[in-house]
Amino acid sequence: MMGELDLNEVGEWLSGTGPESDIVMSTRIRLARNVVGFPFLTRIEERRKSELERWLRDRIRGAKLDWDVSYQNLNETSPLERQCLVERHLISRDHANSKGDRGVAVGPRGMVSVMVNEEDHLRIQVLRSGFQPDAAWRQILDFDKRLEGQMDFAFSPEFGYLTACPTNCGTGMRVSVMLHLPALVMTKQIEKVFHAVSKIGLAVRGFYGEGTQAMGDFYQISNQVTLGRSEEDVLKTVAEYVPQIIKFERNWREKLITENRVGLEDRVWRAFGMLERARLITSEETMDYLSAVRMGVNLGLIDAIPISTVNELFIVTQPAHLQKLSGSELDTPERDENRADYVRRRLASLN
Amino acid sequence: MMGELDLNEVGEWLSGTGPESDIVMSTRIRLARNVVGFPFLTRIEERRKSELERWLRDRIRGAKLDWDVSYQNLNETSPLERQCLVERHLISRDHANSKGDRGVAVGPRGMVSVMVNEEDHLRIQVLRSGFQPDAAWRQILDFDKRLEGQMDFAFSPEFGYLTACPTNCGTGMRVSVMLHLPALVMTKQIEKVFHAVSKIGLAVRGFYGEGTQAMGDFYQISNQVTLGRSEEDVLKTVAEYVPQIIKFERNWREKLITENRVGLEDRVWRAFGMLERARLITSEETMDYLSAVRMGVNLGLIDAIPISTVNELFIVTQPAHLQKLSGSELDTPERDENRADYVRRRLASLN
Repeated sequence: MMGELDLNEVGEWLSGTGPESDIVMSTRIRLARNVVGFPFLTRIEERRKSELERWLRDRIRGAKLDWDVSYQNLNETSPLERQCLVERHLISRDHANSKGDRGVAVGPRGMVSVMVNEEDHLRIQVLRSGFQPDAAWRQILDFDKRLEGQMDFAFSPEFGYLTACPTNCGTGMRVSVMLHLPALVMTKQIEKVFHAVSKIGLAVRGFYGEGTQAMGDFYQISNQVTLGRSEEDVLKTVAEYVPQIIKFERNWREKLITENRVGLEDRVWRAFGMLERARLITSEETMDYLSAVRMGVNLGLIDAIPISTVNELFIVTQPAHLQKLSGSELDTPERDENRADYVRRRLASLN
Repeated sequence: MMGELDLNEVGEWLSGTGPESDIVMSTRIRLARNVVGFPFLTRIEERRKSELERWLRDRIRGAKLDWDVSYQNLNETSPLERQCLVERHLISRDHANSKGDRGVAVGPRGMVSVMVNEEDHLRIQVLRSGFQPDAAWRQILDFDKRLEGQMDFAFSPEFGYLTACPTNCGTGMRVSVMLHLPALVMTKQIEKVFHAVSKIGLAVRGFYGEGTQAMGDFYQISNQVTLGRSEEDVLKTVAEYVPQIIKFERNWREKLITENRVGLEDRVWRAFGMLERARLITSEETMDYLSAVRMGVNLGLIDAIPISTVNELFIVTQPAHLQKLSGSELDTPERDENRADYVRRRLASLN
């Protein structure tokens, strides 16, 4: 028997409620911070790293926050549980797979979180549903200030925040907007977006960030540069260009509907039919079908499923979540069967 | 709005009720006959051909039959209606598309029928659900005798029944068994069947007989030779070899289930999902999905649809039937949309 997943636990960013959420899945800001008095993690001894982890954990707990934070040491967390945190976009793959004392602090509904001892001492993250760079910025600024009340960040008047890798030095900030661009993929316009954003200092990354693949027609647009530009400046660029991509996707969706509404309905409903009926399904195939269904719901072509359920399925059909829900380790064929069963029962429960 | 089709009108052979009907869709016997006093149709004048048509029509009507026969002159029948008769396997494509006075007489539920002025003066047919060569033979023998009471057939003590084309001379009989062989197609064993039957004087033909393609994994096995072998001899060969093919298909179905039950279920249910949800679907794709579903029903993998409905859908999703049901001429894209709508509503009505 499979358990039920508490969606609140999975994350606010999947609620599908923020601005432009038909196209923008989520907005994420992260800040890289290091504290004075400890070496960078690239140069630290294991003993000092453990000390640092405890020291930071206590200070995060001691920060005056308006909400509860749950903290876990990942060295004491099972690989499956760590993989779940990756799938929820709360920790990086590297953080899940590395060794030694390291942790993550997570606020309610995963809106704020802090990785401890990842590449930098602290990686502070705010992750919100829809397109809300300003709200995310205000939230992370407040969070950053509260943490700063507990410790001294390594900061140089010349270089700004100092980081283990110079590419993060300066603001230490990365803003990432996760965009759902099925129409641009379908019409092969997506390359144009890649080309255009690279010219203005933005980069395109995959579903799980840097070095990962796009899945389900999701692409993360984020800033390249952290040095020599203010946070406000970077946010302004994002606030200016992302709406253009949104508009581009929206126009192509309209075009597809105008030119071949039945063809688009066919694609969307067939995808839904596969999710309803398959007995074996891979993660990639699931993402592709969910992507078509997500667009269909947003275009009013299909009303059989709420958008929050589509978003939820993107996450809970990933390997670690599936195994967590089923309560047992599963090999790939077992996962494919389990995934098909889960999706089928979830969709049947909507009737 | 689409009309409803009377399944009785479409044919007993689709009822899915005869022996071995999990694999044998239908058994068909046809006899080629010509009458004394008229030239073969290859040599006849148009005026005499018209005379012959009326003469045969009156004699068919005058035959002492236990059931009503409806007769129609195909020269006075619309092309769409003629195409429907092809799709119901009551007339050949050639008979539908040729010119001049020609006709078809059809008995209740399409079990017996006679083409008038096709390649021969008369082509008498019995078409029955499942594997019943003996019952079909008794029925056509009786029918043949009753017609013979009304006219003199061209017969030579040396050559047997004389026909327009020498390949039909002798018995003038063709026995065809329509077999549903999805497991042999899936496992690529079907070529072995082709090879084996050709050695024993049987031929493999497509869904609409000679010169047509296999569709939906249906293959017609029929005798090649009409000269030098008695009717009983040919029937004996069919009665001996067809059960071997049936067994071969059944063994491979078992093997597929034993080795990969979930994989087979996946295939069957995905096919069903496509039929339930598609908004545009070609005839070929429909046949492929119906084939998988038909096998699934017969293997107990799916119980969402009765076999008679699957069989019915094979016929009513063909171009002419679709247009007849919709009450209007449709081009190919319109048919694909109409077909998807029809199938979807038909499946929804099963709940």
